[in-house]
Amino acid sequence: MSLSQNDPFTDSNYVRIFDTTLRDGEQSPGATMTSNEKLELARALARLGVDIIEAGFPAASPDDLEAVRRIAVEVGNPSDWAQSSRPPMICGLARATRNDIDKAWEAVRAAARPRIHTFLATSEIHMKHKLKMDRAQVLARVADMVSYAVSLCPDVEFSPEDAGRSDPEFLYQVLEQAIKAGATTLNIPDTVGYTTPDEFGALISGILKNTPEIEACCVSVHCHNDLGMATANTLAGLRAGARQAEVTINGIGERAGNTSLEEVVMALRTRPNIYGLSTGIDTPQIARVSKLVSNYSGMVVQPNKAIVGANAFAHEAGIHQDGMLKNFLTYEIMRPEDVGVSRSRLVLGKHSGRHAFRARLTELGYNLNESELDQAFERFKNLADKKKTITDADLEALLADEFYQLHEVYSLVGLQVACGTMGMPTATVRLRGPDGTTQTQAAVGTGPVDAAYKAMDAIIQAPNTLLEFSVHSVTEGIDALGEVTVRIESKETRQTFDAQKEMDQPHTYGGFGADTDIVVASAKAYLSALNKLMIAVNAIETPAEISVAPAPVLS
Amino acid sequence: MSLSQNDPFTDSNYVRIFDTTLRDGEQSPGATMTSNEKLELARALARLGVDIIEAGFPAASPDDLEAVRRIAVEVGNPSDWAQSSRPPMICGLARATRNDIDKAWEAVRAAARPRIHTFLATSEIHMKHKLKMDRAQVLARVADMVSYAVSLCPDVEFSPEDAGRSDPEFLYQVLEQAIKAGATTLNIPDTVGYTTPDEFGALISGILKNTPEIEACCVSVHCHNDLGMATANTLAGLRAGARQAEVTINGIGERAGNTSLEEVVMALRTRPNIYGLSTGIDTPQIARVSKLVSNYSGMVVQPNKAIVGANAFAHEAGIHQDGMLKNFLTYEIMRPEDVGVSRSRLVLGKHSGRHAFRARLTELGYNLNESELDQAFERFKNLADKKKTITDADLEALLADEFYQLHEVYSLVGLQVACGTMGMPTATVRLRGPDGTTQTQAAVGTGPVDAAYKAMDAIIQAPNTLLEFSVHSVTEGIDALGEVTVRIESKETRQTFDAQKEMDQPHTYGGFGADTDIVVASAKAYLSALNKLMIAVNAIETPAEISVAPAPVLS
Repeated sequence: MSLSQNDPFTDSNYVRIFDTTLRDGEQSPGATMTSNEKLELARALARLGVDIIEAGFPAASPDDLEAVRRIAVEVGNPSDWAQSSRPPMICGLARATRNDIDKAWEAVRAAARPRIHTFLATSEIHMKHKLKMDRAQVLARVADMVSYAVSLCPDVEFSPEDAGRSDPEFLYQVLEQAIKAGATTLNIPDTVGYTTPDEFGALISGILKNTPEIEACCVSVHCHNDLGMATANTLAGLRAGARQAEVTINGIGERAGNTSLEEVVMALRTRPNIYGLSTGIDTPQIARVSKLVSNYSGMVVQPNKAIVGANAFAHEAGIHQDGMLKNFLTYEIMRPEDVGVSRSRLVLGKHSGRHAFRARLTELGYNLNESELDQAFERFKNLADKKKTITDADLEALLADEFYQLHEVYSLVGLQVACGTMGMPTATVRLRGPDGTTQTQAAVGTGPVDAAYKAMDAIIQAPNTLLEFSVHSVTEGIDALGEVTVRIESKETRQTFDAQKEMDQPHTYGGFGADTDIVVASAKAYLSALNKLMIAVNAIETPAEISVAPAPVLS
Repeated sequence: MSLSQNDPFTDSNYVRIFDTTLRDGEQSPGATMTSNEKLELARALARLGVDIIEAGFPAASPDDLEAVRRIAVEVGNPSDWAQSSRPPMICGLARATRNDIDKAWEAVRAAARPRIHTFLATSEIHMKHKLKMDRAQVLARVADMVSYAVSLCPDVEFSPEDAGRSDPEFLYQVLEQAIKAGATTLNIPDTVGYTTPDEFGALISGILKNTPEIEACCVSVHCHNDLGMATANTLAGLRAGARQAEVTINGIGERAGNTSLEEVVMALRTRPNIYGLSTGIDTPQIARVSKLVSNYSGMVVQPNKAIVGANAFAHEAGIHQDGMLKNFLTYEIMRPEDVGVSRSRLVLGKHSGRHAFRARLTELGYNLNESELDQAFERFKNLADKKKTITDADLEALLADEFYQLHEVYSLVGLQVACGTMGMPTATVRLRGPDGTTQTQAAVGTGPVDAAYKAMDAIIQAPNTLLEFSVHSVTEGIDALGEVTVRIESKETRQTFDAQKEMDQPHTYGGFGADTDIVVASAKAYLSALNKLMIAVNAIETPAEISVAPAPVLS
């Protein structure tokens, strides 16, 4: 069977899922990920079945380019671990300039199916205040730059930025230029989350009706959630004829975020009679990828978040089997299993052996090699000594703490804390540095976490501001594992370039740690963020054997 | 001027905001609030300008009835503190039974403008599996029970439960019966969050077109967010002619929650040309009420939540004034001030005096009496000794910790903790009991919080399960205040009755604490939840002078 016979894109009812968690999602304050995290997440997105991964904005910095390039090489080509022989497209964002387009092409060209995504604003307010260009200049630039991108890459996507607030007549002209120049996907962004479903659906219908030669292209929708309507707007666009949805996991993204992948996919799946559209998403992986994004980005998911919130299916808990069945029929429109949420909760305990442990991990979709299994089993036994029952959520937190920490410059050897209402919270920290020597420091703080952080700061001289700190318990019970996520901002001058706003933003780093002692978990999380900061700022190379060692993979 | 001349309900473009945070929101797992918290929140909702407060489900238990009754008495009547002389309607929910309707009437009758809201399911799946009634029986019951409610209360709302999945033709018949029987508001719930905006809008249009005599009634919409479309569905219903929106603050509610008040109100306000509708909401109070609900319910708000998430306006931070102005024009569709988010952040420091402190609190809308001010100022000075700059967020956390704790059975006298990576985390706790004596206990746990909780459990014998534990930092900076929210479930047999599902659910209690030491904050939060549990389970009466002392009020 040839590739084209196998190509779902030839099905007129197939919606291409374009995931921009790594680009627009990662651009949200504090969601910055390291190159290794991006690579792991790209692998997870490929397994989830997304069609196109927007992997970053290569012109922002050499590191950003390199991160996209690694994804193009390692995720954008057929491989053993992928579920099918059809790897996802790998896309790089570029402003409508030669330099940006060159950088994007350099980053994505190694992928089997590369894409360049270039954009230029078309609303009066953006043309006047940001671009300082008139309509004729915008039309000419679009024609030039799309042509240039097409001369490099066979698959080019063009976005008229702030389309939701643009004059439709002008939009048709701009899109016509892009099509003539060879763009194959036309993405219509509601950049500021301003439109309503009727309005956005009408915009897409108008574009399909009034833009010459548009039949040969795929129309795409890209919505933001400022008024809480990103999902409804995206679906209205698809009903109007768009066949690509640009989304992020958990709806992360700037301000109120982007459209949630999980909401769009599950709405299409739950309401086939309304939409009659399909996607390539393997929905039982949704919960796990959601958790991965939450850990890597440090962006918590509220309990009442649709599909992936802790309560989304919570009415299952604590009621009798009878009630549950009755309830399933009367109050449930999706089954939790369909998005990878398990109905059963208790799994393992202190007396569970290595065999049961491995079996449960395999059921959960983790596929560890022997040495990883040894490492994980040791952590499990330690936890089981402290905690009566070990649930799936505990196992996932433990594996995240053990394996998602992709590189350690400094590692935590020991921590000792005294605190309470008498004031003077004190922490003593011992760290092992990159040269193998250990250092110990004590510090007093406003609380035990502050004290521990100050002690670590005294060893690792990496000036930063703590932007966010959050802890939650993984499972019920007073002896639960605590998961800590932190975000820090480097005081070094290094900044992240925001392509849309054409402004530098301070670089931030997220860290994650899990332990039954929340002060220990907090120290781990801070150290993991500090390690990322040091790798980025000092360009410390991750040892090769660590950077290529994959995190536990979903089978 | 007479009341009717002043009545916004006579304006055909006025949307009545029916807030059900205290009923459908509080019904979400773990969001249980105490009677005092409900009263405080009802006051805040009245000040916010909601038209109708659904205060609870009085038939669930005598406590629930009493909580609604107190709100009817204290918030449902003209008073000094209210912004206008028009108090909100106070509504009680009732199944379509005489007993429920009697209880609802008993609870709301003391309000100046009482309402009874009764409901009966109309979808085939609910009639068959839950009600075990046929269509004729449902029609007869609706006629009977609405008539009965109207015989007690002049304002009666009727909801055909699961309307979103009901046969429209049958729905028209049911609504016709309700109108004939005297219902004045007809609420159309999408109980399971199943519909799309086009579908839901069409449902409302169909109802308005096909139900005899419906012109005299107000049609209402009540949506759930299971597919992420509650806001869009609600707005589609309003465009189709509904003039009441049932919503909750932060969109809390069972599963993926209810429609968010803030999203609907700000969408109507941001897009007047699309909707042409107004509400009575004083939007600059939104952020503060959102925070109050998050603290009382223990339901965190994710950073990318529309309107009230920490990042919703975060692109303001860390960029230059120039960029900000440019940015405002190009990327902002709402001003943060419009929802009560301050652009300025640093306010007070160690050297700020009592005068500056009072002035800032007044600016923030708090109106403390002298003794409350003394108490708060002392807390402020203690905090300022530990933390360089005190922001508005710090002040609000501090006031929440100090004043939202409406009753203390046990109080925390002292806490001392030792923990770290060597294992054996140990906590010593001293509590003062209701009889004034102190008790001290030490315990070892899996972590410092677990140890502190075990030590408290050894003093207070109130068996419970910790359902959720979360901490986040109030502001940036390593020395930040930590806010802890916990939810516990009592092991006593007492349960909460869920009216819709006709099932008991275990009773849960939330607690909140703030301190620079997260272990101290955790201890305070657990103690506050335990205090609530003891008051509920042992029916310990809150001392009168505390129960009537209002929390700091918004001016």
